[in-house]
Amino acid sequence: MSGPMDYASSGVDIDLEGAAVASLIGSLQRSTRKAGTPGAPVDLPGGFGGLIEFGDHLLAMATDGVGSKLQIATAVKNWESVGIDCMAMNVNDLLCVGAEPIAFVDYIAVPKPDPEVHAAVGASLAKACELANVTLAGGETASLPGIVTELDLSGTALGFLNKDSAITGERLKSGDVLIGLPSSGIHSNGFSLVRNIVSHMGLSYTDSCPFDAGFIGRELSQNPTIADVLLIPTKIYCAPVIGLLKHLKASENSVHAIHGIAHITGGGLSNLLRLHDTLGWHIDSPLPIPPEFSWLQNKGNVTDLEMHRTFNMGLGMVLAVEKDQADSVLSFVQQYEPTAAIIGHVNGNGHKVTHSNPEIFFEHY
Amino acid sequence: MSGPMDYASSGVDIDLEGAAVASLIGSLQRSTRKAGTPGAPVDLPGGFGGLIEFGDHLLAMATDGVGSKLQIATAVKNWESVGIDCMAMNVNDLLCVGAEPIAFVDYIAVPKPDPEVHAAVGASLAKACELANVTLAGGETASLPGIVTELDLSGTALGFLNKDSAITGERLKSGDVLIGLPSSGIHSNGFSLVRNIVSHMGLSYTDSCPFDAGFIGRELSQNPTIADVLLIPTKIYCAPVIGLLKHLKASENSVHAIHGIAHITGGGLSNLLRLHDTLGWHIDSPLPIPPEFSWLQNKGNVTDLEMHRTFNMGLGMVLAVEKDQADSVLSFVQQYEPTAAIIGHVNGNGHKVTHSNPEIFFEHY
Repeated sequence: MSGPMDYASSGVDIDLEGAAVASLIGSLQRSTRKAGTPGAPVDLPGGFGGLIEFGDHLLAMATDGVGSKLQIATAVKNWESVGIDCMAMNVNDLLCVGAEPIAFVDYIAVPKPDPEVHAAVGASLAKACELANVTLAGGETASLPGIVTELDLSGTALGFLNKDSAITGERLKSGDVLIGLPSSGIHSNGFSLVRNIVSHMGLSYTDSCPFDAGFIGRELSQNPTIADVLLIPTKIYCAPVIGLLKHLKASENSVHAIHGIAHITGGGLSNLLRLHDTLGWHIDSPLPIPPEFSWLQNKGNVTDLEMHRTFNMGLGMVLAVEKDQADSVLSFVQQYEPTAAIIGHVNGNGHKVTHSNPEIFFEHY
Repeated sequence: MSGPMDYASSGVDIDLEGAAVASLIGSLQRSTRKAGTPGAPVDLPGGFGGLIEFGDHLLAMATDGVGSKLQIATAVKNWESVGIDCMAMNVNDLLCVGAEPIAFVDYIAVPKPDPEVHAAVGASLAKACELANVTLAGGETASLPGIVTELDLSGTALGFLNKDSAITGERLKSGDVLIGLPSSGIHSNGFSLVRNIVSHMGLSYTDSCPFDAGFIGRELSQNPTIADVLLIPTKIYCAPVIGLLKHLKASENSVHAIHGIAHITGGGLSNLLRLHDTLGWHIDSPLPIPPEFSWLQNKGNVTDLEMHRTFNMGLGMVLAVEKDQADSVLSFVQQYEPTAAIIGHVNGNGHKVTHSNPEIFFEHY
């Protein structure tokens, strides 16, 4: 393979996507629903989740799909993780504003109905509902032979929170401690690059995994295939995060200990920049990196910077916590995620992400 | 063209879809969310919309896509109606349980981002939010070149209602009067058959419309194309239905005058059978049929029965109303839909739909 690989050369044009999204947003005017009535829009910094008023509560909606990870699942006819991926991408976004996910609907588009696919996706969604503690409130299966060539799966999650307990980022300040929750693997982002690297190597997804995929907290079959490792389902963080928020609410003096939450998705560590307009983020003690990332980086000759703006690199979610509460918050989340750890802190050195590896540096999301 | 055309021969296998949906539902277990807590599932007869508990309210979610109507929009590069179609398919379902739609999220999948498409879809969604009086609470645009070959658009609507005002069908009884609200045209169902017929005739969507497409309440350009007529946006019934429910609530003795509401989608008149397990439905005075249906039927040699189980045939929504309230309900909705009319009644002659045209008869949804 000649030259380093990156996300854009794998067929994803981030600038074009940006222009498309900008033109979409430009077309949308303000809501007709008036402030103080159910459904009126609420703007929070950070942009995660769409919040609306509902009496003393806010409701939040998040919508997202699994993306091109689905193509690997379909290639090996193993859809047991895709429902969990779909759930995770949505509920993890809701958690970032402090919303408790309560319900989910799925949208499945296929070229033609296939009971085998639907049974597998259904089982996966059922497992996902259990993991996220949400009700599956509906779903749609569309047969669209002229539009889709293989399975597309997306969904929408609904969550709620008390009006006064939204996590908006406005309490963030220099000195806040960053606690990292480990990812389970690649999750559901960066798969255009993953597929490009695997394809350039001439490997098949059903080949035995050519590296030791063992990692702390991970259970794999004896001789996993490449697909087995790439399809590890995205982690759902509802239990630790909702557990934590309820625990903190119960102890009055720490109810506002969590100043910001970031779901590390496409964009990698640069996601942190979305939480605040001026503060900086320094990662001095990153979580261990699962072996598939090192293998992909090596085989694709990908730079450290590109890896960290495409993948989660072992870090699935970041909590920014009031300094004097950091130890107790860490102890709490370690009940669910034993390898959660303090990874860095918030600083006042400008709106950028810095890292113990000086090559990793972001000023833009 | 040889022999009559029908929906199944147009590439939609309803039995296969049924098996696929059954296998999906079979995989889903009951929710982990307990009765009496936010998000606990609520089962209503009829199956429209997914209802969950939320304090003194119920929340309802509906998810659906535009389907193969999108292929016509994409073929003629005119996406100004598709956002309205997407909204309508979802909010009209919510109305059937008496829920007031308050928010919406869209999911767009494209092979690659195209600012022109996104600007047009965005403008259409903005218009749709205004028509339905909902807040656009988010959206996702996915670039999936390996999965979709052209635009797919779906969405999820959120609505709410008071716990005691759900329209469940349990008040339905013999003698209830059926009020029909006119459709705007084909809406968003049956397009596999539409496309098949147009294709068999060797016509192009940009050809001048070969029949007089004029119809009461319809505004078209001077020389409409076939696409202009086929792409007339699906009617959004929020204003008359929510207006009616609020009006009835304000006059105490008629708060439960509406016993059932059916959104006439794929399945046509057979949708009525979903509202009750044993009662029958007789249509003795159908609404006028827009001219495109007659043209399609004639050119495709489609039976009356097949037309009425594939298309809305001019009838977009049906309200089943307490007999002595029917006149006042009709007067109210005629403020919004002047051609709304009494079309028939509920009877005790078995679980079937009958019609002044004896060929039109349904015993199964």
